[in-house]
Amino acid sequence: MITVDEALDHLFSLVSPLETETVPLSEGMGRVLAADAVATRDQPPFSASAMDGYAVAEAQAAPGACFTVIGEAAAGHAFSGSVGARQAVRIFTGAPVPDGADRVIIQEDVTRDGDRITLGENLDNNKHIRPLGADFKVGDKLSAPRRLSASDIALLASMNIPNVTVTRQPDIALISTGDELVMPGETPGPDQIIASNTFGLKALLEAHGARARILPIARDTRASLEAAFALAEGADLVVTIGGASVGDHDLVGDVAADLGVERAFYKVKMRPGKPLMAGRFGEAAMVGLPGNPVSAMVCGHVFLLPMLRAMLGLGARRSSRLTARLAADIGPNGPREHYMRAIVKDGAITPLPSQDSALLTVLAEANALMIRPPDDPPREAGSQIPYLPL
Amino acid sequence: MITVDEALDHLFSLVSPLETETVPLSEGMGRVLAADAVATRDQPPFSASAMDGYAVAEAQAAPGACFTVIGEAAAGHAFSGSVGARQAVRIFTGAPVPDGADRVIIQEDVTRDGDRITLGENLDNNKHIRPLGADFKVGDKLSAPRRLSASDIALLASMNIPNVTVTRQPDIALISTGDELVMPGETPGPDQIIASNTFGLKALLEAHGARARILPIARDTRASLEAAFALAEGADLVVTIGGASVGDHDLVGDVAADLGVERAFYKVKMRPGKPLMAGRFGEAAMVGLPGNPVSAMVCGHVFLLPMLRAMLGLGARRSSRLTARLAADIGPNGPREHYMRAIVKDGAITPLPSQDSALLTVLAEANALMIRPPDDPPREAGSQIPYLPL
Repeated sequence: MITVDEALDHLFSLVSPLETETVPLSEGMGRVLAADAVATRDQPPFSASAMDGYAVAEAQAAPGACFTVIGEAAAGHAFSGSVGARQAVRIFTGAPVPDGADRVIIQEDVTRDGDRITLGENLDNNKHIRPLGADFKVGDKLSAPRRLSASDIALLASMNIPNVTVTRQPDIALISTGDELVMPGETPGPDQIIASNTFGLKALLEAHGARARILPIARDTRASLEAAFALAEGADLVVTIGGASVGDHDLVGDVAADLGVERAFYKVKMRPGKPLMAGRFGEAAMVGLPGNPVSAMVCGHVFLLPMLRAMLGLGARRSSRLTARLAADIGPNGPREHYMRAIVKDGAITPLPSQDSALLTVLAEANALMIRPPDDPPREAGSQIPYLPL
Repeated sequence: MITVDEALDHLFSLVSPLETETVPLSEGMGRVLAADAVATRDQPPFSASAMDGYAVAEAQAAPGACFTVIGEAAAGHAFSGSVGARQAVRIFTGAPVPDGADRVIIQEDVTRDGDRITLGENLDNNKHIRPLGADFKVGDKLSAPRRLSASDIALLASMNIPNVTVTRQPDIALISTGDELVMPGETPGPDQIIASNTFGLKALLEAHGARARILPIARDTRASLEAAFALAEGADLVVTIGGASVGDHDLVGDVAADLGVERAFYKVKMRPGKPLMAGRFGEAAMVGLPGNPVSAMVCGHVFLLPMLRAMLGLGARRSSRLTARLAADIGPNGPREHYMRAIVKDGAITPLPSQDSALLTVLAEANALMIRPPDDPPREAGSQIPYLPL
């Protein structure tokens, strides 16, 4: 058996960052920036008023001082003249500060009478000016690779970048295998169940930046498996679910091998999700996951999401772990890395009572996979424990 | 000035849960389940083998016992007969356990010779059977309301629910206002900047389940604002950005009032993001956010996401806060609730050095808004501090 990290290393060897494409900024959310975005302007592009008030020369801004208002500057409407001695310009938030002025007196501190203003006695010490280029300057970068957040999108807009270069979304083909499966909406026979993993994995992978396709269920025959693999044409990653075991009824590996997959088959020291098949299938990577519903979803989090991130150019790293405080004592772990369905609430983590890997209800109730290393000793309440958020 | 919670209470009074619609399960990820999903089947629908091995009667499963193999049960292929005394059925993971058998001996513990098997000396104590209905039974529910996760999608598939009833996605119209703005890709004049908030807010709102539309920039004229409001027709929520202040150049409130908005205008005790306008605009709610880029995005997190969740049927509650350990001492807070741009790493939170609300670069660097209540006293490193994840 190999460790989870060893399995991941092998999986990373099967994938590489995909090519890039350009998309409108409005479609950039969640995409992975593939080339540095470089500002072609300063922001703000001029010294700008941060408040509504009056722009004056700092040297003359004494309590009680009087000024003549010679004009107005609003956002988008600069005052074109210069502010001289004892002169002020009415100014609004976002307007360029006129030449000759280097301080804005907020309107609450000013008494106005016609075109004359008098400053109050208790002025604040703030200039209320945002200096030119305070946010960013020409040439400043948002560096790739980076998964774009809503804040990033706002920043890129502000940089005047209407289109962004991002990694193409990986095309992932999902094939569930087994004579026992029918699609949701069909009527299962007495010895059949509903294919659920392809639906769960599609949702998971698409939420993390892939385009996933659910292919027809492959039956336990060579012809059916070959037909499913043929439909995976063009995918960057082909994922089979079920049949990745050592049982007599596991044709998937044999058929994959016949189709040219340089197959490696692993028992991974993990719970749930022990058996894993992996190889190259033409231009695509191929991974075979266990058919147990919870195992397949856990393997999706532990193996497929890191592969997806590697294809997106975010590097070959395992999923980031968070930590939480253990809510109650737990006993020792066995020899396999255990991904326990758990609930994190208010910073405390509690493993759910049943860890049976057949229970999707328990997985749906969980919001975390609590990670226990192989042979982890007993842990006391209050210990910091790593987990993957679900 | 009113508190953030008071402002939220008023905003919640402007919205209600939207109507529902039915979508294919494969499109359900992230949508809000609006009606309980009820299982119409048991899972597993039969007692199922959890391993590859041999099904026998528990009473006869002694170390060294011998059995005659009378048939085979695979997933999707039940064994139709019954297992009698000293009889065994070859069985594979997921197959129905045949009548007469109530234990599976894993194949590693069996020696086979033709149709005869002999059990090993060190049998485990596990029956390796998943009981009928262990995961869920007919009538078990996934209860609404609930934002559907990938695990939920897998569970719903397993329940044989091919379509789900979800809340319609709110239609949110975004209008930025101001003569100083141009769209990304345009060439700004010397006193102009790029409209960024509509792009950031669209990304944020869509990531949380809305459909957002960026309308043309409204100029600082009645005609332009009226034209923009007209284009918001059909929206559930109209958000204006900028012009929600008390300055002479803030036409938005006046125009909204003329269009029938029963307007309320607030100064909210928060930093950044003080001014807020809100009202009903025909069938829609209307909110006016400050034009400062960071303020608008922070208001998006603090006010718009809770309104969005309320429209989605998830209840009228402020955003869930997480907590982290303060990395270094901080001084007292002022009289306004402060949403500080901060970085959370390894459970520790550090506010960024500059909290200037004009800096989108700082917002993009942050992954959290650290929340300080009004007049919060100094806090020492190690204190638990609430935050909103970005």
